[in-house]
Amino acid sequence: MLVMMKSHATDEEIAGVCRKIEAMGFKAHPIPGSTRTAIGITGNQGQVEAAAFESLPGVGECVPVSKPYKLVGRELKEDTTVIDLGDGVRIGGRELTIIAGPCAVETREQTRAIAKEVSAAGARLFRGGAYKPRTSPYSFQGLAEEGLKILADVRKEFGLKIVTEAIDVESVELVERYSDVIQIGARNMQNFSLLKRAGRSQKPVLLKRGISATLDELLMAAEYILSEGNYNVVLCERGIRTFADHTRNTLDLSVIPAVQRLSHLPILVDPSHGTGRREKVIPLSRAAIAVGADGLMIEVHNHPEEALSDGNQSIEPSEFQQLINEVSQIAHVLGRTMAKARDGIRS
Amino acid sequence: MLVMMKSHATDEEIAGVCRKIEAMGFKAHPIPGSTRTAIGITGNQGQVEAAAFESLPGVGECVPVSKPYKLVGRELKEDTTVIDLGDGVRIGGRELTIIAGPCAVETREQTRAIAKEVSAAGARLFRGGAYKPRTSPYSFQGLAEEGLKILADVRKEFGLKIVTEAIDVESVELVERYSDVIQIGARNMQNFSLLKRAGRSQKPVLLKRGISATLDELLMAAEYILSEGNYNVVLCERGIRTFADHTRNTLDLSVIPAVQRLSHLPILVDPSHGTGRREKVIPLSRAAIAVGADGLMIEVHNHPEEALSDGNQSIEPSEFQQLINEVSQIAHVLGRTMAKARDGIRS
Amino acid sequence: MLVMMKSHATDEEIAGVCRKIEAMGFKAHPIPGSTRTAIGITGNQGQVEAAAFESLPGVGECVPVSKPYKLVGRELKEDTTVIDLGDGVRIGGRELTIIAGPCAVETREQTRAIAKEVSAAGARLFRGGAYKPRTSPYSFQGLAEEGLKILADVRKEFGLKIVTEAIDVESVELVERYSDVIQIGARNMQNFSLLKRAGRSQKPVLLKRGISATLDELLMAAEYILSEGNYNVVLCERGIRTFADHTRNTLDLSVIPAVQRLSHLPILVDPSHGTGRREKVIPLSRAAIAVGADGLMIEVHNHPEEALSDGNQSIEPSEFQQLINEVSQIAHVLGRTMAKARDGIRS
Amino acid sequence: MLVMMKSHATDEEIAGVCRKIEAMGFKAHPIPGSTRTAIGITGNQGQVEAAAFESLPGVGECVPVSKPYKLVGRELKEDTTVIDLGDGVRIGGRELTIIAGPCAVETREQTRAIAKEVSAAGARLFRGGAYKPRTSPYSFQGLAEEGLKILADVRKEFGLKIVTEAIDVESVELVERYSDVIQIGARNMQNFSLLKRAGRSQKPVLLKRGISATLDELLMAAEYILSEGNYNVVLCERGIRTFADHTRNTLDLSVIPAVQRLSHLPILVDPSHGTGRREKVIPLSRAAIAVGADGLMIEVHNHPEEALSDGNQSIEPSEFQQLINEVSQIAHVLGRTMAKARDGIRS
Repeated sequence: MLVMMKSHATDEEIAGVCRKIEAMGFKAHPIPGSTRTAIGITGNQGQVEAAAFESLPGVGECVPVSKPYKLVGRELKEDTTVIDLGDGVRIGGRELTIIAGPCAVETREQTRAIAKEVSAAGARLFRGGAYKPRTSPYSFQGLAEEGLKILADVRKEFGLKIVTEAIDVESVELVERYSDVIQIGARNMQNFSLLKRAGRSQKPVLLKRGISATLDELLMAAEYILSEGNYNVVLCERGIRTFADHTRNTLDLSVIPAVQRLSHLPILVDPSHGTGRREKVIPLSRAAIAVGADGLMIEVHNHPEEALSDGNQSIEPSEFQQLINEVSQIAHVLGRTMAKARDGIRS
Repeated sequence: MLVMMKSHATDEEIAGVCRKIEAMGFKAHPIPGSTRTAIGITGNQGQVEAAAFESLPGVGECVPVSKPYKLVGRELKEDTTVIDLGDGVRIGGRELTIIAGPCAVETREQTRAIAKEVSAAGARLFRGGAYKPRTSPYSFQGLAEEGLKILADVRKEFGLKIVTEAIDVESVELVERYSDVIQIGARNMQNFSLLKRAGRSQKPVLLKRGISATLDELLMAAEYILSEGNYNVVLCERGIRTFADHTRNTLDLSVIPAVQRLSHLPILVDPSHGTGRREKVIPLSRAAIAVGADGLMIEVHNHPEEALSDGNQSIEPSEFQQLINEVSQIAHVLGRTMAKARDGIRS
Repeated sequence: MLVMMKSHATDEEIAGVCRKIEAMGFKAHPIPGSTRTAIGITGNQGQVEAAAFESLPGVGECVPVSKPYKLVGRELKEDTTVIDLGDGVRIGGRELTIIAGPCAVETREQTRAIAKEVSAAGARLFRGGAYKPRTSPYSFQGLAEEGLKILADVRKEFGLKIVTEAIDVESVELVERYSDVIQIGARNMQNFSLLKRAGRSQKPVLLKRGISATLDELLMAAEYILSEGNYNVVLCERGIRTFADHTRNTLDLSVIPAVQRLSHLPILVDPSHGTGRREKVIPLSRAAIAVGADGLMIEVHNHPEEALSDGNQSIEPSEFQQLINEVSQIAHVLGRTMAKARDGIRS
Repeated sequence: MLVMMKSHATDEEIAGVCRKIEAMGFKAHPIPGSTRTAIGITGNQGQVEAAAFESLPGVGECVPVSKPYKLVGRELKEDTTVIDLGDGVRIGGRELTIIAGPCAVETREQTRAIAKEVSAAGARLFRGGAYKPRTSPYSFQGLAEEGLKILADVRKEFGLKIVTEAIDVESVELVERYSDVIQIGARNMQNFSLLKRAGRSQKPVLLKRGISATLDELLMAAEYILSEGNYNVVLCERGIRTFADHTRNTLDLSVIPAVQRLSHLPILVDPSHGTGRREKVIPLSRAAIAVGADGLMIEVHNHPEEALSDGNQSIEPSEFQQLINEVSQIAHVLGRTMAKARDGIRS
């Protein structure tokens, strides 16, 4: 059940409802909206009686939840969530979010070189894996904390926000210390222990759709994070597994409007993993923005052919610049803007 | 093997090579390109000796074919095929192709009403099924020749080019009499008898990708048509079958750049069947144009809720107008244009 | 609606109900069952009034149909259909049906050699394609009528029943003349013109599941055939298209009990196409019989490595003998028997 | 590279080769086979020089590894791994392994009641989840350590070996303390941190195939466990995600012979999750044994309709008894046996 507060409800009235919920042994999730605050209730086994709340001061109405999820749905919060990372960088608003960088942090030099390029091209967020989930135990598994430190230095030097993956409960602690956004990868979308731990973090979480996840499963995975109290979650489509063999995965762009219809969470598209083919990254990036995604996550490498992982799907900095140019124009058609580059050259 | 003629080869020299090929018991497929004519050879069992042609007048070089298809590949013809339907209507050029109309021709009134609307919105091609392949034998199967006559009248009245489906060898004869483009549906993509018959038609063929067809299978299906001598084939992506359940099919936009890399045939996108959901048709239309498709095929119905088939995925005329407006702007970003409406109101 | 006759209803009473149905402009489908005859009604647009029939002599009750199909369902006919091909060869009863032979009829010698072997091993039905639907127009397309004549000779010489594929409306006429069972292939499962034509044939039809067909689509395809008056249809699972790459298709054995729950039609399994790998044919044949299938369709070739099509999935005669031995024992566990070889050596 | 020892190589010679490998900074994996011991090498970046080993005493030959996996392949170990759980219970040998029990441990009474039934029917291994990975954070998540204690008591009372799932690195420690086999579920098949931790356990690991895992990915996941030194891994097919909607997943029985061709690890089938439908569990169990699986994992519940999870796919004890009867007979056809029930009533 959702308790919808009146539009002029005071903070004290909201706190009063939350106290009541907690007193019943449940967990209260007050979510401010543009017109009013909604309070989700979790932890209950069966139905919660509306009567217990309807007479409390500031309460507008009690609304039963019609979906399996309570906190990620538009029923709870009509307007799309905007996650503020500071320094004017936001995910989910009118401005598109572009996250760019190498698949893996390989060396300080490589990381700095790429950061410099993508920053110049207008990216405000930097990606790069310090922990790499690899199909083979014998493949490069990432630099771990050493990689995180390199990312932290890149943040300082280039003013980029850092998005990097945590692969288990243990790594979350380090990742949240060094990064701005904790990424949870496709293979871990239903690693519920990891989701719960990320739900107790103070840092926003970027949750990638599993390669065979339905829309409901994706939203329920996000619900795990929100139910622990972390409401700053951004989703990411990165391709699903199908019979089609002309790309590594099949990028499912129809999931973008489907998510936006059901959920208030922002959603990005990763056409690098979504296609697995360098030459398809730019066309599918255009399509992703045209369909209405809130941004892109792009693998960029200064020497794709030498990349320690996913070189086939990484584009070069010059291609990234072209990508930014093309999607900027399409964003404009949809009434959206691109982030200004730090030195103000982009409009 | 392909015989690539010199750029200044005369018609007589080209005919000479063709005669030589036919004399060997094979079939010659001269395909003019922007710089030179290439001649494909089919009907051979094993290798054809290059030596037999290299000394003929006008021959530039003989090139072995590296793909399973010979005639649909870019090896044979570097520039994208443009199909001229007359009256300034083309498929495959700089101008986007928009085909719109109801799933099925139901009545003369319904058909005229929709034709009027889509024509006013700028469509130059009209779709509508007279033969409907339906999962159930008890569903509406189309008006057959009566439907074709209605379409022919619509063509005359509104100056629209007609695209309609032939479902078997028998129906091709009627369809090619009344229509401008013969459509072959997804379920028939590997109905090889139908493909061969369409390959002997004088009318262009719109070939839809089967719901579980790989890229190679799609191109080979087109090859069946070309190998019979009909080179005017346009492909159409309309969604593939996957586990995802938020749309009826999963629209695979990555197949557009994949086709364009391998084949000279133009390719459209049908987001109506591709999603099966009315509210997703406009966003996916934008994405289809952004990814680089040569046009769209859209189901429009004046009373979607009463449609005899596929009402859930048909948009209303006002939505179609909005769709045209949005994709026009995206087309502009890619350096493409929309057809002018007949009365010249569109730019 | 189904009209269930009383168990002792006379032929004249049944005919009376049928006349009544036809007089209303519908089509009557009297289907005898072990205890009583049921009469299906097709051709109606909306509901048919039960009252029109309930007072007719011999009528037990009128039952509304709860499924999209009317004639293939167990609601109409409780006991599994047994198709009698003559000479003691049946499909659908207690005795397993084994259809064996080459993918394609290549030559008279090859066909005779294989027929001799599979006959000796106990097969009573022989398969072999005279019309081959091939992905490439340049692949061997079958010997057509010449192939059918070879099959007819094999029938005479070895006393085998012939199962061979019709690929379009045109070929049905020849196939029904020369063969005992008309096969409709996976690619044509939704070639509705072909299904309707087969529905007007006097010969039984073996209908293969399409590689991306749902259970409902398979049953509705069969319904097309029955609705035209041909009730002798046997289904065949032959693998579906999935992401899995260790076999050519993924054999879906769970569809066997699913079909048997919903439909009275017998169902076979084709592990040759279902796996596409010779070394998996025997294990999956055992599994198919163990799950409860009514029989198998197996590709056997005397020189698999030289086969003009599908050599990778064809087993040798000695392997076929082993297969028969193994599945016979499993059949025994399920209370089923194998056909006796003609000379009576099999039990 | 694999170092194949001579058949009469002494323990000291084997140890000598291992010391040499470790001295080079690599990890040695000596795997005894029926005729000789093979030693796998991991931890190397590039090629290892054969010359370094070929002159060592007891070394037969050095064999390059042709697959991405080194330790799970048949190249390393020709005969199928047999895992001995003590008390005459083994996985992987001639005797089939039957694991049965509820989806989740709900209460002591429920667990005991089911254990009593499955034990009487002949099962020697008991399953039951104490940690339940659930799509929704609001579904029953298992009793955790309390559930493990109930399982440990059941082991003592009924002499059953316990198989239960660990869902993260944290839970492994408790699971390995209370159980005989650590299960890793389908959602965690590529939770590499969990795989590595299980690889450092002394307890055998049952690894379930992910719902969209290819054969190679399954084998590589197992390789993660073996590469850490735990060679007692048993695989389990439990259905893959496809478009088919008549079962919850599509049970891919063809993966059994595919695994057996490539790997020495035993493989079981879980038809409960594999179909998600109670009425399909017995037919698919028969098929699984007929295809050659080393055993079954079956969900049994005394009150399926009241189960806290997966009631739709749980069979009742009487059905389980029937299942055992049917698969015993099929096992016999394949030359395999069923475990004797503790009181010796089964043959």
